[in-house]
Amino acid sequence: MKSHRQELWFDVPQRRAFLNITPQVEAALGDSGVREGLCLVNAMHITASVFINDDESGLHADYEAWLEKLAPHEPIDQYRHNRTGEVNGDAHLKRQVMGREVVVAITEGRLDFGPWERIFYGEFDGGRRKRVLVKIIGE
Amino acid sequence: MKSHRQELWFDVPQRRAFLNITPQVEAALGDSGVREGLCLVNAMHITASVFINDDESGLHADYEAWLEKLAPHEPIDQYRHNRTGEVNGDAHLKRQVMGREVVVAITEGRLDFGPWERIFYGEFDGGRRKRVLVKIIGE
Amino acid sequence: MKSHRQELWFDVPQRRAFLNITPQVEAALGDSGVREGLCLVNAMHITASVFINDDESGLHADYEAWLEKLAPHEPIDQYRHNRTGEVNGDAHLKRQVMGREVVVAITEGRLDFGPWERIFYGEFDGGRRKRVLVKIIGE
Repeated sequence: MKSHRQELWFDVPQRRAFLNITPQVEAALGDSGVREGLCLVNAMHITASVFINDDESGLHADYEAWLEKLAPHEPIDQYRHNRTGEVNGDAHLKRQVMGREVVVAITEGRLDFGPWERIFYGEFDGGRRKRVLVKIIGE
Repeated sequence: MKSHRQELWFDVPQRRAFLNITPQVEAALGDSGVREGLCLVNAMHITASVFINDDESGLHADYEAWLEKLAPHEPIDQYRHNRTGEVNGDAHLKRQVMGREVVVAITEGRLDFGPWERIFYGEFDGGRRKRVLVKIIGE
Repeated sequence: MKSHRQELWFDVPQRRAFLNITPQVEAALGDSGVREGLCLVNAMHITASVFINDDESGLHADYEAWLEKLAPHEPIDQYRHNRTGEVNGDAHLKRQVMGREVVVAITEGRLDFGPWERIFYGEFDGGRRKRVLVKIIGE
């Protein structure tokens, strides 16, 4: 069994954004040499998500508006977590809706995707350097 | 290490439905010959989910009503994604709540389930053929 | 390839609670002898979650209030599932928001975590003994 580990670093200037990280994950898979196996991609931070959906800017605007309705950023004092001095209470909630991680099948050396599947990093508390972990196991 | 890949195809005539796909996943596991490992089951389409819960029709009606409240199908023009000509903006949101994938342990050649765990395909934009991927790795 | 299976049992007296189960998962990893691989941790019950977030009591109070707003426990008769005699319809919905499982990378014999990542058991229908499964594969 082979295994491969790689970190992807991001520094999103806005508070919230969605980034297509599929090319970086594909590059990590190429480095791994794995042909059959599983690829875990997870946010290493608890106010960010990794998820799979469509690379369509209208949809991303819909996600942004919908998450802001489900878990509004303001007023800041509605979240007890923000009594710690943070202002990211909402980000911890939004991340649960969108998820921490994806697991993708590897078949014949490629990410085994449906036609529109792409991997996104969802940032909900930007303005600093944060990481995504890619861990690949297989043969 | 062994690996096994199988696609399951569905053509749900309604817009939304939940299908118990546990027997098909168990059959794929049987075909794999894997006794100890992990089984990934994921929707290959971005307006559908794979999730684990109870096979109880009242609960499925509750999920349907709840998801429609969290992300209503209509009015169609509330979603920017629908400006592309699609009418499935809501389906992309519902799928995030219910999830893309499950990873199930394989122990002694069986899906290692609690007493009520069953695997479901959640369709949120039916009326055409769509796929689920089963990828099994182990020994 | 090595594999290791362990059940963690919980009996939460309250209806709802969040328990940090990271030490028990780390102990299972130690028992496995696996140095490189993947660790699946999943609720075996369909009214409970396993998720990764911050071990901060204010945040947990925020999750509790938010989930109760998204899927209120009462009135009981709002859920068709409760016509079966259960009173846990809400718990099946809350569990979908927080998720069934996490998959964690194992690197050099440790859970490969970001700085604040901790694993939690989310109970939404307590008052009885329930289980979490830890399944580890790797080398």
